[in-house]
Amino acid sequence: MAKFDELAQGGIFGEGVENPYGQFFLGQTYLNQLTMTPDDQVGVGTVRFEPGARNNWHIHHDGYQILLVTDGQGWYQEEGKPAQALKAGDVVVTKEGVKHWHGAQADSWFEHIALTAGTPEWLEPVDDETYNKL
Amino acid sequence: MAKFDELAQGGIFGEGVENPYGQFFLGQTYLNQLTMTPDDQVGVGTVRFEPGARNNWHIHHDGYQILLVTDGQGWYQEEGKPAQALKAGDVVVTKEGVKHWHGAQADSWFEHIALTAGTPEWLEPVDDETYNKL
Repeated sequence: MAKFDELAQGGIFGEGVENPYGQFFLGQTYLNQLTMTPDDQVGVGTVRFEPGARNNWHIHHDGYQILLVTDGQGWYQEEGKPAQALKAGDVVVTKEGVKHWHGAQADSWFEHIALTAGTPEWLEPVDDETYNKL
Repeated sequence: MAKFDELAQGGIFGEGVENPYGQFFLGQTYLNQLTMTPDDQVGVGTVRFEPGARNNWHIHHDGYQILLVTDGQGWYQEEGKPAQALKAGDVVVTKEGVKHWHGAQADSWFEHIALTAGTPEWLEPVDDETYNKL
C-alpha cells in the first residue's frame, strides 16, 4: 500500500492515458491533456505519477511551466537547489531556462495540473542514487 | 445544509479572501490569486462560491478565461445558449468577446480554478428570475 492509493483510479480530472512522453520519465505516469488556451500558447493538462515515478531533468525553452498540485505527495527540484516536498495546494512556477525535475515520492501517488508554454528540452534521468536519498 | 458544505472551509488551494471584485458578484465568493505566468499574461487563481452566488454577466476582452472545476456544483452560461451544469473535472473555455456568467448552483458550494487573460468588462447581474428557473 502506498499513500494516496485512491489516485491509482484517477483524480478530479479523470484517468488520462499512459503518458505518450513516457520515454522521458522513469516509472508509469498518466497524461490528461485538458485544453489549450485559445491563443495556442499554453497547454493545460494533468500528470499523474505512480509512486516513485518522475520525469527526467528538463528545461522549458521560450516558455515556462506552472504546477498546481491537486493530490498526493511529490518532489520538485531545480538544479543546484535542494528538492522540495510537494502536497495538494502547492504551486510551483518554473521559469524559462531552469533545469529541473518533478515526480512522486517513493511511497506515494502524486498528481498536478501543468500549464506549459514553450518547448521542453529533455535531459538525463534522475538516477536512483540521487532519488533514493530524498 | 447545502451540498459540498465542506467547501465552506476552503478547497485544495486554501480559503482565499473575500472577493475584492465582489461588487460584480451576487452572494459571497472567495478569491485566491495563486500566481501569474512569468510573462504576466495569465492570472491563475481559484474562485469559491457559496450556494447561490454568481458573477454578473461579463466579457473577456483581448484575452480569454479557462475554468477548471475542482469541487462542488455550478452553472455556466453564454448569452443565447442554455446554462450548463458544472461538476468537478469539467473544463470550460470562454473565448474573447463572449458574454457569459458562472457561479454556484442554488443548493451547492462551487469552486473552480480560473486562468484569465485580458480585461473583463462587467455587465448586469444575473437576476433572480433567470437564475431561479435553472
